[in-house]
Amino acid sequence: MGALHKGHLSLVRQAASENTKVFVSIYVNPTQFGVNEDLGSYPKTWDADLEQLQTLDHQLATEGLGRVEAIFAPTSKTMYPTLPPDSTLPGVGSFVTITPLANLLEGKSRPVFFRGVATVCMKLFNIVEADRVYFGQKDVQQTVVIKRMVKDLHINTEVRIIPTEREEDGLAMSSRNVYLGKRRRTVGIVLSQALRAAESAYLVGKRERDQILAMAWDVTNRVDMEQDGLGEEERVRFEVDYISLADPDTLEEIEVVDAARGAVLSGAIKMLPLEKTAPGEELGLGDDKVAVRLIDNIPLSPQAT
Amino acid sequence: MGALHKGHLSLVRQAASENTKVFVSIYVNPTQFGVNEDLGSYPKTWDADLEQLQTLDHQLATEGLGRVEAIFAPTSKTMYPTLPPDSTLPGVGSFVTITPLANLLEGKSRPVFFRGVATVCMKLFNIVEADRVYFGQKDVQQTVVIKRMVKDLHINTEVRIIPTEREEDGLAMSSRNVYLGKRRRTVGIVLSQALRAAESAYLVGKRERDQILAMAWDVTNRVDMEQDGLGEEERVRFEVDYISLADPDTLEEIEVVDAARGAVLSGAIKMLPLEKTAPGEELGLGDDKVAVRLIDNIPLSPQAT
Repeated sequence: MGALHKGHLSLVRQAASENTKVFVSIYVNPTQFGVNEDLGSYPKTWDADLEQLQTLDHQLATEGLGRVEAIFAPTSKTMYPTLPPDSTLPGVGSFVTITPLANLLEGKSRPVFFRGVATVCMKLFNIVEADRVYFGQKDVQQTVVIKRMVKDLHINTEVRIIPTEREEDGLAMSSRNVYLGKRRRTVGIVLSQALRAAESAYLVGKRERDQILAMAWDVTNRVDMEQDGLGEEERVRFEVDYISLADPDTLEEIEVVDAARGAVLSGAIKMLPLEKTAPGEELGLGDDKVAVRLIDNIPLSPQAT
Repeated sequence: MGALHKGHLSLVRQAASENTKVFVSIYVNPTQFGVNEDLGSYPKTWDADLEQLQTLDHQLATEGLGRVEAIFAPTSKTMYPTLPPDSTLPGVGSFVTITPLANLLEGKSRPVFFRGVATVCMKLFNIVEADRVYFGQKDVQQTVVIKRMVKDLHINTEVRIIPTEREEDGLAMSSRNVYLGKRRRTVGIVLSQALRAAESAYLVGKRERDQILAMAWDVTNRVDMEQDGLGEEERVRFEVDYISLADPDTLEEIEVVDAARGAVLSGAIKMLPLEKTAPGEELGLGDDKVAVRLIDNIPLSPQAT
């Protein structure tokens, strides 16, 4: 989708360490934006993307790794040759649907999103016929949908999932982070901290949903109350959309973690617009006037029991 | 789907004349049968199918053509590895949908049919990775759906459509014809005759929908009236489901044929069960007690104008 950051580059680097030729696709896919979501305002950063990829490719050359062979940046007429790309729920066109997986978690608030993702990835896989395809752990539901599609539709490729790149304080890298000014950026780590707290419960042997998720909610509730005590020029409002403890293959909510299977901890929060900015305050792109939805997740690995 | 007849064999022969190795798939795909359609009663004729293919393969060898390299007859657990095959309209699982094309004509009475067909063909294409795939003109909507899927999803294969094999009197070959006893078999040619009459109007230069389709309806109405005049032990009842004049790529009904594009004439009729059988009458499989739905079509080729 472009707007490349270190997370994307880590995928390219990983691919270059496991393959001789790497194809990078950059395409802002219209069918995964709902009709009320703003496709037009998605950041387009072609020149900067290209520069980052060229710099990385030079590094890869000196390190003797695989190289960026091509950047695939198709038009929508190439990707949707017959009918214009459709984002409505009935969906006129040729689509791949993966249910019920695609309707859970992120799919609840974005009902056409994973249909768009699965469809465009199917096209991409057929065009490139890659031995391996690389996705970031950051979008965990996307990784599970793609793995399911590859298995169910017998696509001849290997799906590789690469760990989430994080800022030093733990915030997951995302193209959306540029919309967070210093104030929202500081409070935005609440999600990764909440998930980390829940993970620690799992790692010390807790297996019950309530035992694990309570740790996460303690963090979000505490931060919420702290912010409540501040004035409008200091505080940050956020809403927790969900915190989930789910099966790693079906993403269905689970009551108890089967340690032999592991699980996925994930969450989404909405950072609300600042109510009032302070004079001289360090603001993000768009002056912190738009809500920013952040997602994050931590896979809970299977444990010896 | 098995129950091989000369139509299927002509596909294999054509493939063997254009390729060195031919893979034949035989799989009765559950997801293309609606929940009220009888998957269980679909004829399974594995031994006879195998014998026909072996005989044909010996002929191909003596003629120096390509050979039948393998028969792919998977289990449903192979084709649907994650969730059991689902035929309900909401459809739980991983599916390929091609709309609105799949909802027209045959799709009106069988709303999950082409979803099942597209999905299973996608899996098959990914498993075999064939240079060319062969489908019969007989199921014209299937050919259009598959061509659309291949184009829209960028599948790297060539779709080859092979003309309909017919009995000497013009009846299109079909696995279902075995259900027709002599009486229904004789009247069953009404559909191909109706379409042939409409085609003749096109070939002499008619381009208006009404001019062309009136020829077909004249045939069905005449035969219907003839049968009306007979007694229960002699007559055959049938119902015309549709007679269509449609665009060759979208299958949408057209008012005027664009001679540069051509069109598709197609129809479906339901041969009703015999009301009363005569002593010693030659009956079909199932004693002509079940309705049999027949489909047929004639492509109207583009004409110099």
